[in-house]
Amino acid sequence: MTTAALLALPTPALVLDETRMQRNVQRLRDHLGPLGVQIRPHLKTVKSVEAARRILKDGNGPATVSTLREAEVFGAAGVKDIVYAVGISPDKLARVLSLRATGCDLTVVVDSMVQAEAVATASRASGDRIPVLIEIDSDGHRSGLVANDPQLLEIGKVVAGEATLRGVITHAGESYAAVGAEAQAAFAEQERAAVVAAAEALRGAGLPCPVVSVGSTPTAHAARNLDGVTEVRAGVYVFFDLFMSGIGVCTQDDIALSVLTTVIGHQKDRGWIIVDAGWMAMSRDRGTANQAVDQGFGVVCDSQRRPLTDLIVATANQEHGVITIRPGSTVPLPDLPVGTRLHILPNHACATAAQFDGYHVPSADDSRDLAYWPRFRGW
Amino acid sequence: MTTAALLALPTPALVLDETRMQRNVQRLRDHLGPLGVQIRPHLKTVKSVEAARRILKDGNGPATVSTLREAEVFGAAGVKDIVYAVGISPDKLARVLSLRATGCDLTVVVDSMVQAEAVATASRASGDRIPVLIEIDSDGHRSGLVANDPQLLEIGKVVAGEATLRGVITHAGESYAAVGAEAQAAFAEQERAAVVAAAEALRGAGLPCPVVSVGSTPTAHAARNLDGVTEVRAGVYVFFDLFMSGIGVCTQDDIALSVLTTVIGHQKDRGWIIVDAGWMAMSRDRGTANQAVDQGFGVVCDSQRRPLTDLIVATANQEHGVITIRPGSTVPLPDLPVGTRLHILPNHACATAAQFDGYHVPSADDSRDLAYWPRFRGW
Repeated sequence: MTTAALLALPTPALVLDETRMQRNVQRLRDHLGPLGVQIRPHLKTVKSVEAARRILKDGNGPATVSTLREAEVFGAAGVKDIVYAVGISPDKLARVLSLRATGCDLTVVVDSMVQAEAVATASRASGDRIPVLIEIDSDGHRSGLVANDPQLLEIGKVVAGEATLRGVITHAGESYAAVGAEAQAAFAEQERAAVVAAAEALRGAGLPCPVVSVGSTPTAHAARNLDGVTEVRAGVYVFFDLFMSGIGVCTQDDIALSVLTTVIGHQKDRGWIIVDAGWMAMSRDRGTANQAVDQGFGVVCDSQRRPLTDLIVATANQEHGVITIRPGSTVPLPDLPVGTRLHILPNHACATAAQFDGYHVPSADDSRDLAYWPRFRGW
Repeated sequence: MTTAALLALPTPALVLDETRMQRNVQRLRDHLGPLGVQIRPHLKTVKSVEAARRILKDGNGPATVSTLREAEVFGAAGVKDIVYAVGISPDKLARVLSLRATGCDLTVVVDSMVQAEAVATASRASGDRIPVLIEIDSDGHRSGLVANDPQLLEIGKVVAGEATLRGVITHAGESYAAVGAEAQAAFAEQERAAVVAAAEALRGAGLPCPVVSVGSTPTAHAARNLDGVTEVRAGVYVFFDLFMSGIGVCTQDDIALSVLTTVIGHQKDRGWIIVDAGWMAMSRDRGTANQAVDQGFGVVCDSQRRPLTDLIVATANQEHGVITIRPGSTVPLPDLPVGTRLHILPNHACATAAQFDGYHVPSADDSRDLAYWPRFRGW
């Protein structure tokens, strides 16, 4: 990393290691290529056109988004094949049609007759047959119909009648609780089986189902057989984080994102080092709290991003982080004077990145200045 | 509230009830006026010039901030008396001096000799004697020196020698764990006693200490005697939130902030209503999790902002909130079809507001259109 340029940044600042990011992107491509599926990266994690260009196949798609604002920004940047992977509410269909009218092939998701009828009505009124994926519930995590729900065919018929039935989609959100490749592979198979069964039910009723979409970062990496699946979605894999390393999907060294912070004080009697990265910088995400190793608000690394043994951000106020030695450890507190620069690895990359307006991207070989990739947000 | 205008907003959206906000602002003024202190509102909560104008005395100060960016934005908007209430790091002093050169009387905070010497050096080099408050630790919560720490006088001498020693400052952060006015009043007295003792120690050594600053939302409301204190800081009191109602500082009806959301689905077998406000809208703050009543990610209200009995956002993904009946309640799940608009009261106003770019502010009497007050962020 270009240490000199980083040292000049006001802190807290979000730092992205492009080499690690590219390694993570390549890893999933290498895993899924032989399984015969395409990757549809979920851009909710990066929310950055500069980052998306480095993640998407040939830079412009296919992609997944979590908000219409993401669809609009990435669509304007030339991404032409986008799935909006949150159940559509009827009031959002006008924006969907507007974006589609610009030439972006935006697909929406439904899991109820109310939504299907709204999409059918909007398609008929506009003359644009909106593409639809029906959401399948593969693990009781969130939204979707179970594969043998009789509503599936009813909804499929309404969609195919006036809109475009493109297929089925599921997300194995419960796989985040599975530790290790074996347990995650079982979730991947459950995810595959559920959505393939739904696809077969639709086809058996004479309905089209060209797309069979699965995805979560743990199952994407653990899947061994994706027969019947056409595409895999994943988001946080490009950055990874402590949550993902906690369940064994990556190592801490794979984490591409860190928050640069400065030591602003000490409470020596209590073994505290106080930094200017509080929860406003790290986010309030405490996702590792229930894992085998609780990482507090993040793992502390030195200015070269080398982890400092057993040092974590134990608590956080809005603009103060309190660093301590992990409970139970006998490692002595290092001497980190006021002004010392540190990196903090985040619990949850999506949440931490959302606290910042952009990424500072050091050059891997000092061949260029620090780059800045803006992020956007909102809905 | 102007329901028609709210119904046209894309969701999720942040809604601010100006009537409730003004009531909260007036309440603290009414409480602290007779106690003979000035209020220095902490603008880290609102991060909005439009909101600040309605909170600050005569619209332009005094104020407290948590970042130099806040100081710069509010300074440019005409706020001329600002305390940056996070311990200064030496690398930030150039920005402090730049802002002071524009005519903004910005005060910094120190609790170590390293910081004091850095401020003294910067003052000498610039010819601008930077005003300084020495941070006092009144409850073991975070930063600061205990009042009888011999370093207090040493630091005071260094500051007074080359910079401007303006006084002492403390924050009773532990008061957030105190439930009820009696317990909070005890924290207020502890806060007062600590900082007044520090002021007396400085004065006893012949050092100036015109400012004696205390503050937290619970202690600001509970304090009964502020002898020796010159000013009180508070931030979240302008909006309030479920955390503050959980410790009895306000009622749920006082909460001025809500997130407007739309129902996007159901899992009837599981008693779930799914909305488009996930943690990206609510923040990951789960501050009520350890209170007597866990409010999940927020309390659910109807479109008129009337709480729906025992309905909370129990879990959240990035863009999905899952509403359920509170565990243990026998209230039936209400029928809220896809498309229904709901308000969610937040756990922590500072964290939830930070997820949005601005406030939608309905007219109290439908006499004007929905106003929009932009927020800013960053450091």
